[in-house]
Parts: sequence; C-alpha cells; structure tokens
Amino acid sequence: MPRYALLIEYDGAGFVGWQRQETGPSVQQVLEEAAARVARGAMPEVVGAGRTDAGVHAEGQVAHLDLDRALDPGRLVEALNFHLGAARIAVRAAACVPQSFHARFSAKARAYRYAILNRRARPALAMGRVWHVKHTLNLDAMRAAARHLIGRHDFTSFRAAACQAASAVKTLDRLEILREGETVLVFAEARSFLHHQVRNIVGTLKLVGEGRLSPQDIPPILAARDRSAAGPTAPAEGLTLTAIRYDPDPFA
Amino acid sequence: MPRYALLIEYDGAGFVGWQRQETGPSVQQVLEEAAARVARGAMPEVVGAGRTDAGVHAEGQVAHLDLDRALDPGRLVEALNFHLGAARIAVRAAACVPQSFHARFSAKARAYRYAILNRRARPALAMGRVWHVKHTLNLDAMRAAARHLIGRHDFTSFRAAACQAASAVKTLDRLEILREGETVLVFAEARSFLHHQVRNIVGTLKLVGEGRLSPQDIPPILAARDRSAAGPTAPAEGLTLTAIRYDPDPFA
Repeated sequence: MPRYALLIEYDGAGFVGWQRQETGPSVQQVLEEAAARVARGAMPEVVGAGRTDAGVHAEGQVAHLDLDRALDPGRLVEALNFHLGAARIAVRAAACVPQSFHARFSAKARAYRYAILNRRARPALAMGRVWHVKHTLNLDAMRAAARHLIGRHDFTSFRAAACQAASAVKTLDRLEILREGETVLVFAEARSFLHHQVRNIVGTLKLVGEGRLSPQDIPPILAARDRSAAGPTAPAEGLTLTAIRYDPDPFA
Repeated sequence: MPRYALLIEYDGAGFVGWQRQETGPSVQQVLEEAAARVARGAMPEVVGAGRTDAGVHAEGQVAHLDLDRALDPGRLVEALNFHLGAARIAVRAAACVPQSFHARFSAKARAYRYAILNRRARPALAMGRVWHVKHTLNLDAMRAAARHLIGRHDFTSFRAAACQAASAVKTLDRLEILREGETVLVFAEARSFLHHQVRNIVGTLKLVGEGRLSPQDIPPILAARDRSAAGPTAPAEGLTLTAIRYDPDPFA
C-alpha cells in the first residue's frame, strides 16, 4: 500500500476540530470521505499530525494515508480537492512517503500563530480569525513574560483538564510576539504541545499585556502546577496551525 | 449640524456594494440605518468616498455624515458599531470635521490592494478574499507592463461600459506588484479611478503574468481606447479599498 503525506489548509469555523466526533463534521472525516472517493474502496484512515480543536485554523496541517494503488501526487491533490467540494479545506500538496513515515509520530516540531486584533473597533474583515482585545497591549511586558516560558518546564498550569499527555513537561522552543499594524501575533513552536497549551499561554500573556499580571508573575504560575494559577484560555478562532516539521521535509 | 468623518472596514461579501440599491443590502444603507439609531431622528445620509462594487472589501473606506447633535467621536464609534449588530462592517474611527469636508470631493487619492492566490491548490482560508490563479505568474513581466500604465493616460480600454466619469483620462500614481508567500499583491493608487479600472488592469496584468500578453502589448491596448482590447475584469472578491487620502488627514 503506497503511503502519501498531505499538506492541508482549513478554516476551522464550521468543524468540530480535526478529529472525528459524534457531534458534527470534523476535518478528518471530510478528508476521509474525499479520500474514499479517490480510493474507490474502503475508506482510508487520514492520520493527522496535530489534533486541532473546534474553530482552530490550519495553514500547514500534515496527515498521512495509505491508498490501494499508486497515484501521481499532483493528481492526488487535484482529486482530493475536487471531492472536497465546497468544504473550506484545501490540500496544498501531496508526497509519496515510506511506510515508516507517520504524520504524528515522525513530527519533529509543531508551529502555531495566534492573532489578536488589538484596537477599539470590532473586527469586520478579520472576524472569526482573531481574538478582539480592545486594551492596547504592552508588547515589552508580554515579551518579558514569554522569556520565562521558553525552554523546558512543567506546563501543568497551562494544560487543559482533558489533556491526555503522559507528562506535562514540555520544551517550548519559540514564543515570539510581533505587532503588525493593529494585529498582535504570537508565534509558538515546540516538539509537541499539551491540550490548549498555546491558547492558555496566550490568555495569560494577554493579562500581562493589559498590566493585570506582571512578567514576574510567570515563574510562580509555572511553579504552582495548577491550571487556575494561569490566565483564561484564549478563544480558538485566533489560532492557526502554521507548520509541522519533519526531517526530511516530505514536501521539499 | 456637526459633521463627522468615519473610517470604515467591511467584508464585501453579502453586500450589493457601497451604494444603496433596490437589489439588496448595501454598506451605505446598513450604515445609515445604524446612524438613524444614533441620531434618533431622520436618517442621516452617509456619503462615501469610494463607491465599491458588490463583493469588494474595504479596510479604509471614508464617509461623512451630519448629526443633529454633537457627540464625542469615540462614543459615536461605539454607538455605530453597537447598532451595526452582526453586519460585517466596523467603524474604526470617527472625527469631527468642518462642513467643508466632503468624503468624496475632498479626497486627494484612493488606494487599492488586489490579492491573487497564485498556487495550484484552491483557497481555503483565503476563500472570498483572493482571485485564485493556478499558473505561476511572472512578476517581472507584470512589473514591466505596469510601468506602461503608470502616469496620465486615457484609460478607456480599462473602463466599464457603465462608467459615468466625464473623462477617461486619469493619472495612475502607483501600480506595484509584490509576492508575499503564495499571494501576489497589486497595489494601485490614483486621485480617482474609473469604474472597474483596477479590476480591468489586474485582469490584463494577469494575462501578462501568464505569458498570454507581453509588456509591449500594453501601449497599443491603451491607444486602442476600446474595452475589448484589454483583458477581462478580475473578480471583485480579490479587491480591497485600503485608504482614502485627505490633506489634512481627519483621523490623524
């Protein structure tokens, strides 16, 4: 069975998240139904690298699937996009990969971008893509707070109750904050993240940016190992999974 | 009657355009209805600087209106956004202006950005915001073509049949083309534009980028003064009105 890696973009609105659920359409389910039309047989399993939550977007999700026959990757992209119909999902690229490639377990790192629209007026063009924060954020304070979070820590205070990870110790490789016009962007990268970790970090950094927490509050929040010590979970709609990194890059 | 200038953002999808029409909701109508709730009397006329077409977006549309009483501009912004409800329109700023200020006639220049998603795969996140062009565009050729369009010309070949302007002679001050990842952006700026001028220019530049026209074809297209000599009209959804310029800037 030839295995393919897929590079996938989607608008998280209207999906219950990446993973199949009883409660509504998931990105995985819609992709598997499109893949079944291409495979013309049993529905292939589409295994994603990152299980994004309901409302979270992706520019660079990666998944793998096995097909019953060899197909030119370019034709696989065209066929999947055709069968995806009106769904707000696009397969950006496909590549033949060895059976040893696993979208989730072979991933070396995951990269996310969180967008905050930081102005008084509500969003119109960016509606559904940003967290609207009216209070002008202090980026210097947010960056000082971020420096306490970068590196290897026990992130229990930033972990959802439902998180199934064996350990809350994770290494955060990048946590950068930029202003681009009226938008504040938070870039986070790690080998792997806990459930809601990026959104809980952003919810806490936002309190720092508003002056409701200080950067010096971050070390005791980490040390507390208690979810209630950190800030609230930032809304899903501001979050985009931008890239999954592999070595070698299957799409290079 | 105190006069106010408004800085307005909207998602053009779902509107018949800026201007009031019988055929459906316009941005102007929805703003006037919100303004009537603020004015608590007769519906004020909201006069826009640029009459964007159906589907065209705006980040920096400007309009003026007269109110029956003086209101703090910040409170006017909040009140209008409140009464705009779920409409994908946001008033970004308001300013008190003299009665001599006219959103349309006082404007010194208009700036537009056109977005082309230039990749094989269809758009998912950018759906409704871009023109999807699969063929890799040659930006050098497009820039060479653009140089023939910058300056003062008779733009009859780039003018919609319905255009009501007295003269087709316009001065195009800026026509720049940039690539940003998979997106090609065309920036156009002029004191004023003919109806569909930007979209007709982009439709023609796209043929140059695909190699179906050469930059040397542009001077004869201009000289023809015939709409059928130029390329097709690019779709509305890729176009955004980014700024209207005044001297002095009412929002500075």
